[in-house]
Amino acid sequence: MSLVLPRIPEIDRGAVEAARARQKSLTKPPGSLGRLEELAIWYAGARGRFPVPVPEHVELFVFAADHGVTAEGVSAYPTSVTAAMVQNFRAGGAAINVLAREARIGLTVVDVGIAGDGSEGPPAIASPGVALGAKYVAARVRPGTANLRREPAMSRAEAVTALEVGFAMAEAAAGRATDLLVAGDMGIGNTTAASALVCAFGGNDPADVVGRGTGIDDTALARKIEVVRDALRLHRPNSGDPIGALAAVGGLEMAALTGLFLGGAARRIPVVVDGFIASAAALAAMRLAPAVRPYLLLSHMSAEPGARRACELLGPPAPLLDLGMRLGEGTGAALAVPLLRAAVAAQNQMATFERAGVAQKLPA
Amino acid sequence: MSLVLPRIPEIDRGAVEAARARQKSLTKPPGSLGRLEELAIWYAGARGRFPVPVPEHVELFVFAADHGVTAEGVSAYPTSVTAAMVQNFRAGGAAINVLAREARIGLTVVDVGIAGDGSEGPPAIASPGVALGAKYVAARVRPGTANLRREPAMSRAEAVTALEVGFAMAEAAAGRATDLLVAGDMGIGNTTAASALVCAFGGNDPADVVGRGTGIDDTALARKIEVVRDALRLHRPNSGDPIGALAAVGGLEMAALTGLFLGGAARRIPVVVDGFIASAAALAAMRLAPAVRPYLLLSHMSAEPGARRACELLGPPAPLLDLGMRLGEGTGAALAVPLLRAAVAAQNQMATFERAGVAQKLPA
Repeated sequence: MSLVLPRIPEIDRGAVEAARARQKSLTKPPGSLGRLEELAIWYAGARGRFPVPVPEHVELFVFAADHGVTAEGVSAYPTSVTAAMVQNFRAGGAAINVLAREARIGLTVVDVGIAGDGSEGPPAIASPGVALGAKYVAARVRPGTANLRREPAMSRAEAVTALEVGFAMAEAAAGRATDLLVAGDMGIGNTTAASALVCAFGGNDPADVVGRGTGIDDTALARKIEVVRDALRLHRPNSGDPIGALAAVGGLEMAALTGLFLGGAARRIPVVVDGFIASAAALAAMRLAPAVRPYLLLSHMSAEPGARRACELLGPPAPLLDLGMRLGEGTGAALAVPLLRAAVAAQNQMATFERAGVAQKLPA
Repeated sequence: MSLVLPRIPEIDRGAVEAARARQKSLTKPPGSLGRLEELAIWYAGARGRFPVPVPEHVELFVFAADHGVTAEGVSAYPTSVTAAMVQNFRAGGAAINVLAREARIGLTVVDVGIAGDGSEGPPAIASPGVALGAKYVAARVRPGTANLRREPAMSRAEAVTALEVGFAMAEAAAGRATDLLVAGDMGIGNTTAASALVCAFGGNDPADVVGRGTGIDDTALARKIEVVRDALRLHRPNSGDPIGALAAVGGLEMAALTGLFLGGAARRIPVVVDGFIASAAALAAMRLAPAVRPYLLLSHMSAEPGARRACELLGPPAPLLDLGMRLGEGTGAALAVPLLRAAVAAQNQMATFERAGVAQKLPA
């Protein structure tokens, strides 16, 4: 199976310039809304229109998959937690259910390769007062990856298929007139794979990238660093072959996220990128198609050390938030959505100096 | 006129411990929601109850006042802008109107001492599609302060009266069952006064605190530093006499903000603090009553250099956001409200490990 990359349009310079001019006319000192101004200008350029409406229809996809590398003892939780958390998403009890609901974001969980069963049995019982769970899409490419310390995590064909799942999600969302996509992940063991991927793209020493994930101790951390080192030595993934790197040391959810980024950008739907796992996938997408980068909004700096390296490789603008979060699921990304909405609303709805009769800046 | 300080209750340790225990039981690795967890635990303690409902009824007060020190050429905008912006708030065209609406925050602008007329004439015409302006409270203590380079900005009695205006706003909001207060400011020239106030409380050199405010050039910046230096030399305000410092080098909006902080804390209503001006007022409140500090949520790090110094003096926790904003009006604070709501919602609505049937952390 081979991958045909979509055509990604450039950011619309006309919309950017119109938004920039509008910002200067609004009743505030120029630049005083800081990154909110940049956000609103960026969003107009990415959507390719000015004025651009506030993104109301927002969809978040959590791609869930398992990782054979958990056999090496690299995670604080058993693999069964991935499937159990998928049930939890469906029942409405996970953090992302609550944060998505608060931010009026539609939530879909996509099984792109969990090892256990996320599709059967009654959904787990959520807390009282919780209304809605996530939509569920069964799109399992394979039941978890192989152990990347010993063999490639998956075949190239499987990586492409997973990528196409993510791409198809973006396409379907575009068909529902989605204004904004949000990207999250769930997968016990996936910080190990994401660390290997970041090292593949950035050439770093694993010791500078690997972190404690869900909370491993010093012994497990040392082991996790060695696992990543062994995997890089075995597969020699390189940044010139992003599909090869995803297949060798990545994960099914990261391949799907890569596809979501490409699909969103191709349709001028910007994508809000969550933390470490999503940033690693964003790197893969950027290596495949550099034109994707301007469509990605880095939402927050994860507390996982590799996130900082991934964000450096992705280049500016830097993540919006830094709240010491390291959960994944799209939780950091969901928090950035109200900021973007506020930024665009201010751009659209504030009065101009002229209209409000407010004096402009004094001559210097 | 003398000031009788309110009794401020301590943070409720029982509610804090109950919230902390709840956080550990939720379906996420412990600590993985980072500052969201801390926020939700803090809010339970400040409100003195667990479980604590998501703060739905939120009220933001923008205190507006003018500054005689503008005669020294320290601002990029003419004094008339304060009154014009108050009209703009009333008509719904300012940044804070839009951001408050987006975050479902009730907005009131309080004229605590503008020099021009914010109360007469038809409200300015806002942009199309803007629905509601701010409520307006006329509570002018005096028409702007005196020039603090030459004489005290106001008398002690006036400072106390302005403080009591803010206190009364908190009391009235408490009577409306407000869950959360938000504090903002408007006043051409007020970064000069706030800089002097921070120097009074922190003992810093004005050159390390004074910034460009709404956007002055190098010449005006040098002048502004000298103005603050002269004022400190003339009045010798000190941190042991916060009312004296507010009267000598502060502003009417800062005195009112100080009162709002004290009034909120006295009623167990936490207050979200905006940027530089509000942080300087928070320092005054903390010097008057150290017990107020735990009720204050620092929302964002303003781009104005003095804000960093003020936040250091206020001590941890550090501001939540850092978006390069320097507008005031409560705009940074309004952005923090959805984060707090999301944090409390997650604490209340997420499923527990037990309930969701998700396996807990593996033994090390």
